[in-house]
Amino acid sequence: MDTGRLKKQLAFLMEIDKLKNIYRQTYIANNDMPSFSPDAEKIPLPVPRKENDAEHSFSLAVFACILSEYSNEEIDVLRVIKMVLIHDTVEIDAGDTFFYTAHLDSKKQEKEQKAAERLFGLLPDDMKTEYRELWEEFEERVTPESKFANALDRIQPLMLNCFRGGIGWKEHKLKYSQIKERNKHIADGSQELWDYVLELIEGFFQNGIIPE
Amino acid sequence: MDTGRLKKQLAFLMEIDKLKNIYRQTYIANNDMPSFSPDAEKIPLPVPRKENDAEHSFSLAVFACILSEYSNEEIDVLRVIKMVLIHDTVEIDAGDTFFYTAHLDSKKQEKEQKAAERLFGLLPDDMKTEYRELWEEFEERVTPESKFANALDRIQPLMLNCFRGGIGWKEHKLKYSQIKERNKHIADGSQELWDYVLELIEGFFQNGIIPE
Repeated sequence: MDTGRLKKQLAFLMEIDKLKNIYRQTYIANNDMPSFSPDAEKIPLPVPRKENDAEHSFSLAVFACILSEYSNEEIDVLRVIKMVLIHDTVEIDAGDTFFYTAHLDSKKQEKEQKAAERLFGLLPDDMKTEYRELWEEFEERVTPESKFANALDRIQPLMLNCFRGGIGWKEHKLKYSQIKERNKHIADGSQELWDYVLELIEGFFQNGIIPE
Repeated sequence: MDTGRLKKQLAFLMEIDKLKNIYRQTYIANNDMPSFSPDAEKIPLPVPRKENDAEHSFSLAVFACILSEYSNEEIDVLRVIKMVLIHDTVEIDAGDTFFYTAHLDSKKQEKEQKAAERLFGLLPDDMKTEYRELWEEFEERVTPESKFANALDRIQPLMLNCFRGGIGWKEHKLKYSQIKERNKHIADGSQELWDYVLELIEGFFQNGIIPE
């Protein structure tokens, strides 16, 4: 057995454990600390709490399993899952960029390329190539798998936001038009899911929770 | 489009978001809050912090992708990933049981069966059957996929524990013999990974970090 190879794989797995420390702007659906948690008293979790990249990626992988039937095109679900599991890896070095302001960060791409080089570079060469390419594929949104993975990456925070009464949109003073504009590429991955989500967002607008 | 079906799927996805609130006994690998986190000041994360079920399941899914080549038998990686993603779902109702004391809880099985009925019951019938069966398969440890998934479910906390200098073992005053005994079924899924892990644990014993 080639322990050198396994050591590289484990080094990568320990490194991406850091995704558990990178917090996003989305609030988790439920904030109650269940009474059976062994640390219920010790962990002073803020209420409401936002999710981290590991939790977000977990959700995307389950979304991929449960919602794959709504993809516009035929997809390899395993490829979609691999993609969503590693799509935020670069944030370990480059940080999380808030989706609605990401276009304002001119150095984002450069920072992320450098991060991808270092992080996927921890893996053995064959896997480095495989996962780096999967990440590039995700970013490019051209293949059926990456279009669907990107749709999930937008639908999951939208669903959590709706579930929490639009809390994130209110916090960031987002407008109906902005939310529609920044999420419309969901339709490239799944027209059915976009139709459904759009109706949900419209409900928030018509109830006066989000402006314009 | 059948919105009734989609609503059931989304209800399940929102429900299992609760896995983000169920904390385990394993410490995450890195506790430093990166300075670029938008909530760095607001989230008073305890140092060191334990991981929750969503984070654990995320890690297992990535472990499945990266380490599948070490399975004793040929496996369908997608099935393994689905299994590890949902293997802790029942803990939403039944709570997390600490691995080293699980055998002391006589009502564990009954509580978990009831939880599986309610939780997978949120899904449309075909998916309810699929995921309930996947969970049962995981619990039974008979098929190649479930043997490997169970091996990962033990290796991941062991690796984090080793990475953190055996912190969890020390906290729970576990002995070398107990750790070996309770983890030996890793070999049913992967002899190669068990050989490697066993050597790691032995190192902790020989350095006097764990007794006997």
